[in-house]
Amino acid sequence: MLKYQEIAKEIEKYIEDHKLQQGEKLPVLETLMAQFEVSKSTITKSLDLLERKGVVFQVRGSGIFVRRHKRKGYISLLSNQGFKKDLEDFHVTSNVIELDVRKPTQEAADNLNITLDDDVYYVKRLRYINGQTLCFEESFYNKAIITYLNKEIVSESIFNYIREGLGLKVGFSDMFLHVDKLNEEEAIYLGLANGSPKFYVESIFHLTNGQPFDFSKVTYNYQQSQFFIQANSHLL
Amino acid sequence: MLKYQEIAKEIEKYIEDHKLQQGEKLPVLETLMAQFEVSKSTITKSLDLLERKGVVFQVRGSGIFVRRHKRKGYISLLSNQGFKKDLEDFHVTSNVIELDVRKPTQEAADNLNITLDDDVYYVKRLRYINGQTLCFEESFYNKAIITYLNKEIVSESIFNYIREGLGLKVGFSDMFLHVDKLNEEEAIYLGLANGSPKFYVESIFHLTNGQPFDFSKVTYNYQQSQFFIQANSHLL
Repeated sequence: MLKYQEIAKEIEKYIEDHKLQQGEKLPVLETLMAQFEVSKSTITKSLDLLERKGVVFQVRGSGIFVRRHKRKGYISLLSNQGFKKDLEDFHVTSNVIELDVRKPTQEAADNLNITLDDDVYYVKRLRYINGQTLCFEESFYNKAIITYLNKEIVSESIFNYIREGLGLKVGFSDMFLHVDKLNEEEAIYLGLANGSPKFYVESIFHLTNGQPFDFSKVTYNYQQSQFFIQANSHLL
Repeated sequence: MLKYQEIAKEIEKYIEDHKLQQGEKLPVLETLMAQFEVSKSTITKSLDLLERKGVVFQVRGSGIFVRRHKRKGYISLLSNQGFKKDLEDFHVTSNVIELDVRKPTQEAADNLNITLDDDVYYVKRLRYINGQTLCFEESFYNKAIITYLNKEIVSESIFNYIREGLGLKVGFSDMFLHVDKLNEEEAIYLGLANGSPKFYVESIFHLTNGQPFDFSKVTYNYQQSQFFIQANSHLL
């Protein structure tokens, strides 16, 4: 982790620990520089990172303010590989249904930019929140990049393992959202009636070098699913 | 618009005009600097903006590459006030059902940080895509900020008017997504069966100074709705 990322993490922790509310003002730049003993350019990079993450907003000529929403129990859609953090008040567990090495489907091959002859790790799992089904996931990992997975790894956070175990850098993702009706298999997995509302998210995750390594299809239990997104003006 | 924003727009246009595909490499920094006759710091800011917008990705020591997804007909969820841009291949129209000045509901007052005695513009409209219902919207605008609306304005892009007509700077938004079943009123508006899947998005839009000015509730026709989101690593 680079210096400015460390400082950003500390500022974020400070906001959480002190339960600062939206609109509360942070100390001025000079005070932050002195407090963390870093240069102006480092603290500026830290604050830019926090702004992009939606933790603060900066008002030119006026200061840096806390950004925070008021609702509890919402999952951040843009950090969906980190359920546990968003839902730390809840108890989240996984049940691995299938894990094997196989050839990709046409759809998975297209989304991963690989051929039908390449190998993928296929992972199918159910995730639970407080004992209720949260979602049903199918993921295809390009085995040339994600060289090893086992049942223990996929029972926990696969992305933590990819970052820390394999030392890979996750870059960006494309997500496609659909709403439809559950088919029979999905309904059984989620413990809902056939034809119930279905919230379905396909994601393609890329390394920082642009290579896609994971194509995931996640079907959520609509009764357990509330999501939030924080957007900045450049996205509006 | 600042210089680096202008340049960013030109680069984006170049990518679109030349139909560059994901992974294609852009000219090196020096070439871009010469081409646009700007300093290194300006071109760097332009590229950072394009990276945050998901138009390019930068690989350290290797170059700048085009980022682009392959699917057509998806609406960008993070620029949902700009349907027309995402859906320019389609024909989008609006039907204004109600427009008046009133006192806010408790929910709207809470989300806009105003009191029950303050005034809001209330807008209820239906939006159509190729003659099919796309969504049913209810919006509450803080009248102290959005001082004037009329039927003509709300038939078109309200956000264009807010930016260009009122000269306000839109800063950031918080979005809350839910999936549920349509009630009778919603089903009638959308032309779907009662109890059909419902994709429901609440948004709170803030000015750059942090003031919330718009609380919107949008219910989508699930048959017409496919969304995409581009996320960067700092969000994952």
